[in-house]
Amino acid sequence: MAVIVQKFGGTSVGSAERILRVAQRVDRTAAAGNMVAVVVSAMGDSTDELISLAHRISSRPPEREMAMLLATGEQVSIALLTMALAKLGREAVSFTGPQAGVLTDGNPLNARIRAFTAERVKAALAAGKVAVVAGFQGADAAGEINTLGRGGSDTTAVALAAALGADVCEIYTDVDGVFTVDPRIVPEARKLAEITYDEMLELASLGAKVLHPRAVECGKEHGVAIHVRSSFHDGPGTIVKEAVKMERGTVISGIACDEDQVKIAVVGVPDRPGIAAGIFTAIGNAGINVDLIVQSIHRNGENDILFTVSRDNLEKALAVLEPVVKEVGAKDLQYRHDVAKISVVGAGMIHGTGVAAGMFAALAAAGINIEIISTSEIKISCLIAADRLHDAARAIHAHFKLGEAVDCP
Amino acid sequence: MAVIVQKFGGTSVGSAERILRVAQRVDRTAAAGNMVAVVVSAMGDSTDELISLAHRISSRPPEREMAMLLATGEQVSIALLTMALAKLGREAVSFTGPQAGVLTDGNPLNARIRAFTAERVKAALAAGKVAVVAGFQGADAAGEINTLGRGGSDTTAVALAAALGADVCEIYTDVDGVFTVDPRIVPEARKLAEITYDEMLELASLGAKVLHPRAVECGKEHGVAIHVRSSFHDGPGTIVKEAVKMERGTVISGIACDEDQVKIAVVGVPDRPGIAAGIFTAIGNAGINVDLIVQSIHRNGENDILFTVSRDNLEKALAVLEPVVKEVGAKDLQYRHDVAKISVVGAGMIHGTGVAAGMFAALAAAGINIEIISTSEIKISCLIAADRLHDAARAIHAHFKLGEAVDCP
Repeated sequence: MAVIVQKFGGTSVGSAERILRVAQRVDRTAAAGNMVAVVVSAMGDSTDELISLAHRISSRPPEREMAMLLATGEQVSIALLTMALAKLGREAVSFTGPQAGVLTDGNPLNARIRAFTAERVKAALAAGKVAVVAGFQGADAAGEINTLGRGGSDTTAVALAAALGADVCEIYTDVDGVFTVDPRIVPEARKLAEITYDEMLELASLGAKVLHPRAVECGKEHGVAIHVRSSFHDGPGTIVKEAVKMERGTVISGIACDEDQVKIAVVGVPDRPGIAAGIFTAIGNAGINVDLIVQSIHRNGENDILFTVSRDNLEKALAVLEPVVKEVGAKDLQYRHDVAKISVVGAGMIHGTGVAAGMFAALAAAGINIEIISTSEIKISCLIAADRLHDAARAIHAHFKLGEAVDCP
Repeated sequence: MAVIVQKFGGTSVGSAERILRVAQRVDRTAAAGNMVAVVVSAMGDSTDELISLAHRISSRPPEREMAMLLATGEQVSIALLTMALAKLGREAVSFTGPQAGVLTDGNPLNARIRAFTAERVKAALAAGKVAVVAGFQGADAAGEINTLGRGGSDTTAVALAAALGADVCEIYTDVDGVFTVDPRIVPEARKLAEITYDEMLELASLGAKVLHPRAVECGKEHGVAIHVRSSFHDGPGTIVKEAVKMERGTVISGIACDEDQVKIAVVGVPDRPGIAAGIFTAIGNAGINVDLIVQSIHRNGENDILFTVSRDNLEKALAVLEPVVKEVGAKDLQYRHDVAKISVVGAGMIHGTGVAAGMFAALAAAGINIEIISTSEIKISCLIAADRLHDAARAIHAHFKLGEAVDCP
């Protein structure tokens, strides 16, 4: 008898009819002899509706009260899904995050999970019931309700699977799994049967939105196999786990496209030690993640410092940078929206060679200029012109023959 | 410094704008130097919307999950009201029923309050904050969420006032207070400055819908002064308390009109001991409250047993009665909708005399026939034709001069 955690997002439970469909899938899994715990998000747009209700009251609602408000969304979902299971004759019981034993760190709207005892969930499973747990929420040691922020429900599911020692954590989504590249951009994209946590982390961080990086990190930490699969059919998706088949024949797993980038340039920076540190300390203190960075050296003793941030951080970054730019005596602060980042990811790169050369050659053959390059052990990223992103993806995908099924059987 | 509990119902918090108005009133009370705890219901129709959502999933949802679902309604209200108070610069903190320490008996949808520690509420008040508590809900000893059923938020407010040793529990409503009779029926109706718990219980049970009997009972038990007042203006309402001014000069406090009655007649019942017991045991076992009862004796050794139930219990009562009627050999089971109950209530009746005679005389002078009479120490009820109810109310109100202000200053 396997222990299976299944996670369904807001779209999957967006209406009474969809909740009934989710219940049927859960019921089938339980009927096949498995112990099943389910994690659900708030219904469809309900979280957005609650946020807009709060903003009709106050433009800056206290975070504690926002968490109190938002936590109701998942509580509605767990009650309704449990009702739907009862209607199918399947014994089930719902738990809020606090009831399930999700202990959080006290950060109201962006909490981390400190511990997950899952005692009541274990008792329900042992009694032959399906446990339905609210994603995205927990309570701190003082009993205060916290929400987990972005990717919270994925993380709840993976953490629950770790707490239960589950055989697999299934993340149901509106795509079939993890692809070598976004199929909307490259029709030849191929679904991967398996991928490592590290590769998935690079792909997730780089803009492949099927699974939140926090959940992948949690899965890696606790060795939870994560099965990303479609909520529309029963076919297999992609399994994220520690080691994939040794001889899979590919160096690269996938290509990530990221259009959510803005390039910021601090122009004409005097060439003195500590100036780059000053700039990036200011940015870091404002809670802004910097992605690609290059520093170009001019002959006249001045540098340009270029880096990218996500679009929703642009305004904050500019506000933070303006005084710093004056202070260090830089000549100008510029930014551009018309850039995009393309990355190739693969654990095989650690041992394989020639990936960077192949990528640059493919881009060059397509006439695409590279503005910034950044590498890690398992990925290479290039900043290019936004209007060439799709061409770049197709060129690289074809160059590395990613569309051909080379996984071992 | 007074400790004041204020309760606002679903209509008062039915929109963002209304929540902001409630916050202003709470803020004024706190600004006047009082410690304020607020109890709120779910917004407007939100409870009905949750119920209809549940019924789109299942016609018979499990009670536990229904309580899990419905409890979200008040949680939304407390978060939003606390945000509104914060916007006004008033420090406030929200608590769900379980967080506030409402310990319930484990009945999911119709729970009674076993204990109310209110420790976190007390700490918030001591810290100079307004405490905003979810009405209608609590948790049992196992941490299961329960809702309190009808009148639950009123009861939460009065129980909280008892736990805090509050000076007064203010129940905000859409009427100005408790009147001698429904002002829509008798324009001369006068607002009462004070009324005893027992009188209010009779009036509340009899159909004056300003305050739920459970809340009055709780107030009586713990000696909590309850101020029923308007949410539209600052004028005083009616204070419900143990003893009102001794020499108030009135025997009768008010008249209650109840159109929610159906008369059921079990006709031609053999005159044997135990038959009435059989009938009312069956009704009682079905959870149906019987109101007025008369048994009329015929000469031929048969009786008619007449009684009233509320309209929404009619179908269930008939289903329960049909086998019993056959079993005891009664001749027929009949019912009539065109009846109404009018009652006069007054603690002064215990010592005063002539109330029954005056009521019957007033009805006779108006040409109104009495079908059933029932009395308690502080009330007299008559079942009459529904289309004469308003005439009866006006006649009795005039007869006892209830429109004249005779309260001591």
